[in-house]
Amino acid sequence: MSSAVSPLAPTEVPDMPVIGGVRLATAAAGIRYKGRTDVLLAIMDKGTNAAGVFTQSKCPSAPVEWCRAQLKGAGSSKGGLARALVVNSGNANAFTGKTGRQATTLTASIAAKAVGCKPNEVFLASTGVIGEPLDASKFDGVLGTLADSAAPADWMGAARAIMTTDTFPKVATATVKLGKAKVTINGMAKGAGMIAPDMATMLSFVFTDAPLSSAVLQALLKSGVQDTFNALTIDSDTSTSDTLLAFATGTAAAAGAPKITRAGDPRLKAFTKAFRAVLADLAEQVARDGEGARKLVEVIVEGATTNISARRIAMSIANSPLVKTAIAGEDANWGRVVMAVGKAGEPANRDKLSISFNGIRVAKSGARDPSYNEAEVSEAMKAPKIQIKVALGLGKGRDRVLTCDLTKEYVAINGDYRS
Amino acid sequence: MSSAVSPLAPTEVPDMPVIGGVRLATAAAGIRYKGRTDVLLAIMDKGTNAAGVFTQSKCPSAPVEWCRAQLKGAGSSKGGLARALVVNSGNANAFTGKTGRQATTLTASIAAKAVGCKPNEVFLASTGVIGEPLDASKFDGVLGTLADSAAPADWMGAARAIMTTDTFPKVATATVKLGKAKVTINGMAKGAGMIAPDMATMLSFVFTDAPLSSAVLQALLKSGVQDTFNALTIDSDTSTSDTLLAFATGTAAAAGAPKITRAGDPRLKAFTKAFRAVLADLAEQVARDGEGARKLVEVIVEGATTNISARRIAMSIANSPLVKTAIAGEDANWGRVVMAVGKAGEPANRDKLSISFNGIRVAKSGARDPSYNEAEVSEAMKAPKIQIKVALGLGKGRDRVLTCDLTKEYVAINGDYRS
Repeated sequence: MSSAVSPLAPTEVPDMPVIGGVRLATAAAGIRYKGRTDVLLAIMDKGTNAAGVFTQSKCPSAPVEWCRAQLKGAGSSKGGLARALVVNSGNANAFTGKTGRQATTLTASIAAKAVGCKPNEVFLASTGVIGEPLDASKFDGVLGTLADSAAPADWMGAARAIMTTDTFPKVATATVKLGKAKVTINGMAKGAGMIAPDMATMLSFVFTDAPLSSAVLQALLKSGVQDTFNALTIDSDTSTSDTLLAFATGTAAAAGAPKITRAGDPRLKAFTKAFRAVLADLAEQVARDGEGARKLVEVIVEGATTNISARRIAMSIANSPLVKTAIAGEDANWGRVVMAVGKAGEPANRDKLSISFNGIRVAKSGARDPSYNEAEVSEAMKAPKIQIKVALGLGKGRDRVLTCDLTKEYVAINGDYRS
Repeated sequence: MSSAVSPLAPTEVPDMPVIGGVRLATAAAGIRYKGRTDVLLAIMDKGTNAAGVFTQSKCPSAPVEWCRAQLKGAGSSKGGLARALVVNSGNANAFTGKTGRQATTLTASIAAKAVGCKPNEVFLASTGVIGEPLDASKFDGVLGTLADSAAPADWMGAARAIMTTDTFPKVATATVKLGKAKVTINGMAKGAGMIAPDMATMLSFVFTDAPLSSAVLQALLKSGVQDTFNALTIDSDTSTSDTLLAFATGTAAAAGAPKITRAGDPRLKAFTKAFRAVLADLAEQVARDGEGARKLVEVIVEGATTNISARRIAMSIANSPLVKTAIAGEDANWGRVVMAVGKAGEPANRDKLSISFNGIRVAKSGARDPSYNEAEVSEAMKAPKIQIKVALGLGKGRDRVLTCDLTKEYVAINGDYRS
């Protein structure tokens, strides 16, 4: 595994404020890694509402199935209540058959006992190797100790405990007014590889003290992932464990924050924007920590027939190994971008295409730009962030997705991950 | 560019027989490469019929558009006649706008003059870098010399002239009875990267002396590519230049071969089988020469709800960077295979899945096989050919696709191809 921190890691790490009603603790349970934390327990006050979005994989992990089951009644008074979140890294508990289901049940019951809640108020997420049984008995004892030591402050430590091939912990925060009260949103994520859209994403957890119902949280997640986590791809591979959970403790109600139970509530406007900014921040950090990444790549497609068409073309570009290796080689290879546009199967007219790299137009009307200057473009390709902009010239459809380059390090990391 | 021959190259090269009515010549026109041939001229006798299948890219190259136009009347008496094929490597003449169209017109007119035919009897294919103008005036003179020197024998030389990042020339041959006469099928291909299905394939040309109409040839191609070139992927990227052309000179009619004008003609049975075998042979050679490939990978999916569903799942596995890097690392990482099944979006039931590597079952009923033996599987993964077999347990749908592993060499080759 790569240990050097990604050169694209954010240079400034935010101070993570405390969220009323949330306490965190981490431990080294020795699930797979040595000498590092690998279990996170988050304890939420009574009355915390939960929501989640999950992988679209037809073969989801046992923890994903567990969380889905707990959220079934979300929006009614019977479900979507959360008191604990248990996350382990090192083993995804995916493709583990009956043993996997037993491991989730056992983990939830151990956590429920430790926290003093019902098992169906416990949410679970696991990340790491697929196909190997998770020994949930390792949580016995550990979770009790964690429950005793849980404290509000260590968000970076929590983000660190859920890492796998990540090279840096990923956190984001926003503070915003809800009614006249100040409310806070804190998020963390882990990513790195096996990351493609059409899902929530790898693992990400967002907490707020705002008094929001499960249904409101669910609506915020659903609209929020569309242009953040779902507009992100590292390698086109979709994990069986992708999980994004949101928890609202509601403690800000004591400071006067209004209870919001309707997604369309106009008082939610600033909160929605801040919530989305936290998701966007975390998604970008995942792209910045793509396995082996040396360049952050932003693909913008405009002039498509529809926004959906623009998304498909942008994803075709962002998932193309040949585009991604060209970026790794600092080569403004617009021919490969044309190739990726062409294979997307969406309306495109070769002779109307324009393509820019970092604002320098290299191709226009289906051929090399007359003003093309190799030296200028080559210099621009040395930047750590590359924007590929494709103008199709057909309509008003527009989209943006994030990815990273494809380097030999990606192959090295993934050619010897399991053993 | 990599120069060492792929370790997966065939150890035996067939003796390529002469095809009546076909003469070949190659030259070094200095289009891009130094010290090697880069132009192939094939001259066919009068009365040769042609057919072709092409990339599904929405942004096809100028030569693809040229060939499509010449085949428009194929099947009628007005089109589908061929007297010459000009192939150049080093420049794909793709995404070159009006200049590209002018280059094809100019090349065809130079070739027509050299061969003594009409420009619409000239077929063109170009392969190499995309987006850079092709200077067709370089063919002036060269093609005249080639026409004078063209001879029936040098098929390997022809296959060599059309290579780009290929590490070995790809030829295949079959001899079969048509009626009571012996007829021959010779094929060549170039491949290596930017190879994905839903198309004909990169460049491949098949010649026969059998007296087949354009319509029959077209039908043979259409059905023939389905489980050969279309069941092949190197990197999921679809070239803008993919072209598979077939030419039937009909000279075997003199030896008594019947003229076939109907695709359903029962006399065509043995020929159809042999034709498909040539395509399958060439397609496998392309997989064996996948850029940076160290392992040939055969993915078999069975028990799917339909054959189409099996194809989609097989392609999802074959295109997964995480599966391909695991194979490169000789890691029987069945968890990633489950991931790729799950992301395909096709019917799958995690708990019914079985997965084998080279005949060793590693997963059964959605969990690790009880008889799993790490040492045995690790040993099997050292083989140069890896078969991944997935049994879905849902229905009778079955499919097979070929690919290769994803190595650091792929990234090296493509990270610095253009410059």
